[in-house]
Amino acid sequence: MGSLRKPAIVIHGGAGTILRERLTAEVEAAYRSDLEASVNAGYRVLTQGGNSREAVVAAIRVMEDSPLFNAGHGAVFTHEGTIELDAAVMEGRGLNAGTVTGIRHIKNPIALADRVLQHSPHVMLMGEGAEHFAREQDFEFVDNDYFATERRRKQLEQVRRADEGLTRLSEDEDDLDAALRDKQHSTVGAVAIDSQGDIAAGTSTGGMTNKRFGRVGDTPIIGAGTYANNAVGGISATGHGEFIMRAVLAHDICARASYTGISLQAATDEIIAGKFADLGGSGGVVGMDPDANIVISFNSPGMYHAWVDVNGRSGTGIFK
Amino acid sequence: MGSLRKPAIVIHGGAGTILRERLTAEVEAAYRSDLEASVNAGYRVLTQGGNSREAVVAAIRVMEDSPLFNAGHGAVFTHEGTIELDAAVMEGRGLNAGTVTGIRHIKNPIALADRVLQHSPHVMLMGEGAEHFAREQDFEFVDNDYFATERRRKQLEQVRRADEGLTRLSEDEDDLDAALRDKQHSTVGAVAIDSQGDIAAGTSTGGMTNKRFGRVGDTPIIGAGTYANNAVGGISATGHGEFIMRAVLAHDICARASYTGISLQAATDEIIAGKFADLGGSGGVVGMDPDANIVISFNSPGMYHAWVDVNGRSGTGIFK
Repeated sequence: MGSLRKPAIVIHGGAGTILRERLTAEVEAAYRSDLEASVNAGYRVLTQGGNSREAVVAAIRVMEDSPLFNAGHGAVFTHEGTIELDAAVMEGRGLNAGTVTGIRHIKNPIALADRVLQHSPHVMLMGEGAEHFAREQDFEFVDNDYFATERRRKQLEQVRRADEGLTRLSEDEDDLDAALRDKQHSTVGAVAIDSQGDIAAGTSTGGMTNKRFGRVGDTPIIGAGTYANNAVGGISATGHGEFIMRAVLAHDICARASYTGISLQAATDEIIAGKFADLGGSGGVVGMDPDANIVISFNSPGMYHAWVDVNGRSGTGIFK
Repeated sequence: MGSLRKPAIVIHGGAGTILRERLTAEVEAAYRSDLEASVNAGYRVLTQGGNSREAVVAAIRVMEDSPLFNAGHGAVFTHEGTIELDAAVMEGRGLNAGTVTGIRHIKNPIALADRVLQHSPHVMLMGEGAEHFAREQDFEFVDNDYFATERRRKQLEQVRRADEGLTRLSEDEDDLDAALRDKQHSTVGAVAIDSQGDIAAGTSTGGMTNKRFGRVGDTPIIGAGTYANNAVGGISATGHGEFIMRAVLAHDICARASYTGISLQAATDEIIAGKFADLGGSGGVVGMDPDANIVISFNSPGMYHAWVDVNGRSGTGIFK
């Protein structure tokens, strides 16, 4: 065993049209408080000897349990008025991964993705099959209603009407509704490096408000929304999922750094501001390189994020 | 409009433990005949002015309709004795993609993936939701039994018993059974370049014999089993899906060529024989670069494949 290294972690709570002038001090404080609780939960795992995968899962669970983020409790509604959740986790050592999509009855989808990584020969499980696996693994089941919040139900109605061309998205909702309004963004995610130098990345989401037809987004797609490789780093993405999938965003960032020799931050900035934006993609990523340098980059007006670096310095951020 | 270029196409019908000494002349001739029918169907689209996406879909439909390949009719059974199909198609111009997973009642899953690409705001649809989309798009539905073949049912029983540790995979089946025996391989796919220089890639599969829990493999994952980008090329993969997903194989091949400047064939050979094999992955890919050079590479004993190049020269192959 090599010498122990200092751990670090970075998380995001979604990117999108987060406008400073519409975010009241109270709402902003609520977001920063839950971001801090999440990143601290992950960092605590790392300082108590847990590995990076466990830290990522711990951080994401906090955001899944918070009603503020589009993951777990507080996730967005599908067109049919149900809530269907996706999650993924990947280890940079050995490139193991577990992902789930179309989850309706598991309180913490990231915990199920973690179980797939550890106890399934498969990488990705979907829908009822994934929940069948969860039952065999003695997961607790919750009603789909557990995930529902009034705010998101109202958002569904607004987006439905806008998607049908009946209205523009309302401008008169309260401030927290404004913060939640963007229908395509606010996936949560985390990337950590532990005392062994192992990197892990994870992501969890309810997907896109008013999604139909069993739509699968980028979150549970290894290489798109989630990717980790000890040789180059880990990435968790948030934003318009279809563009992240077509860009194979998380893997492309790592490949660009790996094959050209530039830093992960430089590769990230070039792609997020360059070809990802050129494709029409909006959103951002957080990441971690093998030297525990934290990566944060987004081309949307805002991205909820927080970090604790190798010196124990921590912070939260929302705007550019 | 630029000057018209000469089109080309390459297909695969799956990779795996295809042993020359167990493949009778009769069985080998049957495979080569259906490979030729497939590649010729795609090439005909190209010479009649169709685009590369249409050619890829036409070629794959022929293999989906053939009982010899693990896609459409003749696909492998799940643990529960059903058949669940995945397919994907991607255009190198504009990076548009459509993919479906968990399809049970659509005769040609590649045609549904193509429809998702053309008529859905989403990239990937799963299960009943995908079939709901198919119904709205006036697709014809078939019974799940349409896909079933006696040979695959026998194979399921063998694999079930082997997976349960009750037996080794039987050595006494007939020759065609031997050819079909490998449970993890024989996805089909195609990559083409058309007279505009546009590249497309597509892949279709029944997945892995005895798969459980709504397992999603690499085929419908953009970047894993399927990827195309006019700037660098197109790739369709076949092999052990979980490894292809963890390797983000199709995108990694394209990224290596793009970021290092080596040829697509060189990037493919380095990765298939190098880090993909090192990870434990078995299988192979076919591909096409922007100069219409055909790429064929596999690290398994065999891969069914066929091609027509820019000079109209054609061929089929199985072994190294």
